[in-house]
Amino acid sequence: MGEFDLIQRYFTPASYPHDVLLGVGDDAAVVAVPSGFRLVAAVDTVVAGVHFPVDTAAADIAYRVLAVNLSDMAAMGAQPRWFTLSLCIPDASESWLTEFGSSLQQLARQYDVHLIGGDTVRGGLNISIQMLGIVESDVWLQRGGAKPGDVLFVSGIPGEAAGGLQLLLNPSIPVESLHREHLLQRFYRPMPRVQLGRRIRGLASSAMDVSDGLLTDLGKLCAASRCGAHVDLDALPISHAAIATYGQQAAEQYALAGGDDYELLFTVASENLLSLESAIGDLAVRCTPIGRIMPGEAVQCFRRGEPVSMNITGFDHFARN
Amino acid sequence: MGEFDLIQRYFTPASYPHDVLLGVGDDAAVVAVPSGFRLVAAVDTVVAGVHFPVDTAAADIAYRVLAVNLSDMAAMGAQPRWFTLSLCIPDASESWLTEFGSSLQQLARQYDVHLIGGDTVRGGLNISIQMLGIVESDVWLQRGGAKPGDVLFVSGIPGEAAGGLQLLLNPSIPVESLHREHLLQRFYRPMPRVQLGRRIRGLASSAMDVSDGLLTDLGKLCAASRCGAHVDLDALPISHAAIATYGQQAAEQYALAGGDDYELLFTVASENLLSLESAIGDLAVRCTPIGRIMPGEAVQCFRRGEPVSMNITGFDHFARN
Repeated sequence: MGEFDLIQRYFTPASYPHDVLLGVGDDAAVVAVPSGFRLVAAVDTVVAGVHFPVDTAAADIAYRVLAVNLSDMAAMGAQPRWFTLSLCIPDASESWLTEFGSSLQQLARQYDVHLIGGDTVRGGLNISIQMLGIVESDVWLQRGGAKPGDVLFVSGIPGEAAGGLQLLLNPSIPVESLHREHLLQRFYRPMPRVQLGRRIRGLASSAMDVSDGLLTDLGKLCAASRCGAHVDLDALPISHAAIATYGQQAAEQYALAGGDDYELLFTVASENLLSLESAIGDLAVRCTPIGRIMPGEAVQCFRRGEPVSMNITGFDHFARN
Repeated sequence: MGEFDLIQRYFTPASYPHDVLLGVGDDAAVVAVPSGFRLVAAVDTVVAGVHFPVDTAAADIAYRVLAVNLSDMAAMGAQPRWFTLSLCIPDASESWLTEFGSSLQQLARQYDVHLIGGDTVRGGLNISIQMLGIVESDVWLQRGGAKPGDVLFVSGIPGEAAGGLQLLLNPSIPVESLHREHLLQRFYRPMPRVQLGRRIRGLASSAMDVSDGLLTDLGKLCAASRCGAHVDLDALPISHAAIATYGQQAAEQYALAGGDDYELLFTVASENLLSLESAIGDLAVRCTPIGRIMPGEAVQCFRRGEPVSMNITGFDHFARN
């Protein structure tokens, strides 16, 4: 399989927007970063058997690897623009490549991002995407910046992806087919919150995406911001499908500790709460205030006003790094 | 092994230049592309057993994966600035990571490029680097652009890397130790021709780096430029070490068909030859005129003025894609 043949045949878009001056097919691509903008760069790699079961459909793998990179842009408040693809696959089956390429291009079109380069190599399934985006100088989002008193928000309903993964790992779990469908969809097809990230720029004091579990990632946000947080478990949105399948307690654990959600976790100072409401009010994605940033460095959960000690281990079923 | 811990512990530079606004440790990095410049992006992945023997030292692997990406920047005439690293390794041995990280940082410092992000995952050894560079608008180099009559140049001495690889694959080949050292060095430690690429911007009508063998890559350059080429075998620089080890004929074959050289292949119109000489005269790297761009689409070799039919297969010892 010729590297450029493969990339060109299965992955190259039919046309490029004006900011792509040289696309796939040369030693590198050349793009134009508009003046007044900064470049935002991220990389995320997915490996079969680590990030998804080995028998995952090509279309789902393609969606997932692009989505997790789009989610990094969302977490920065950036507009994703271009990406490169490094595809290591055991063999070059035409049907696999067609399915992968078509799913990748579909999501790429949806988010207006453009493949500008890549390479392919034969080996264990390992797919790396490097995402490039732009953001207005100098109003990006980052993990550091939360201040005591800021309200902590999470988008969507965390824990559903973990609920879906659990079904994949334990197919004997009894589950209603509608819930099964919903939870698997949330694992395989996370929704990168790019629009939300764009809207909260300048309003959120900090932001990140939730990939390793809400409490774990909140710990990182707090560490970067040199502060602590209180989480109000009574305010935490919990998945109905997960409750119906796993019960209230396990569903809450998934919400707090399950990975792969790719929701945004962000903080907003009190004086910006009204502006936030008008900025994101018309978006379809729900954002729920679930706690508050505190002095110190501890992340503490509360139920009915009482501190609760949470055991957040034991939900990491893959050998995640 | 925690992903950010690893990247931060072994790979993060002690400090960043002014154009890195946010480095390793967030969901993405933020950098400043200077106004009047375009962004150049490339990705290259190396896999153990495909691009290098599985027992290659960590320092050599690190050098190589960064060098091949720097070489892509060289081929575009770009100034490399930043890179991300996706590191998939079977285990996180401290000595391996220390050696890898230190070699990577050493080459990065030498070329003034800066690691701005990355991820790590456990799996078969697979290392992907995405390189970002900048180039003055709109004077980059690319494969398309060669015109009939242009003189074809190659930098350095092609074929030495292939001669080195051959020694690795067949340890019983008799070779003088100085030659062995030299050829292995050329395989493990290719010199990215970044300075050369910068100097020939605006003078070369086309350029690319030689990674898959001179004639194969010349074919790509010609295809992109919609032209053919004549190669003068009498002018081709041939490695003394390769001749001494493999004989004249095999050494010539390595020069024409061996991969992994990461030399630049470029074309210059006759009226720019004098300017070229003054532009690159003080560089330590030798550039040899080895032929001429022709109408048509054929790449034809000549010896003592007579067309020669070359068999350029049979030198691809790894299962390269």
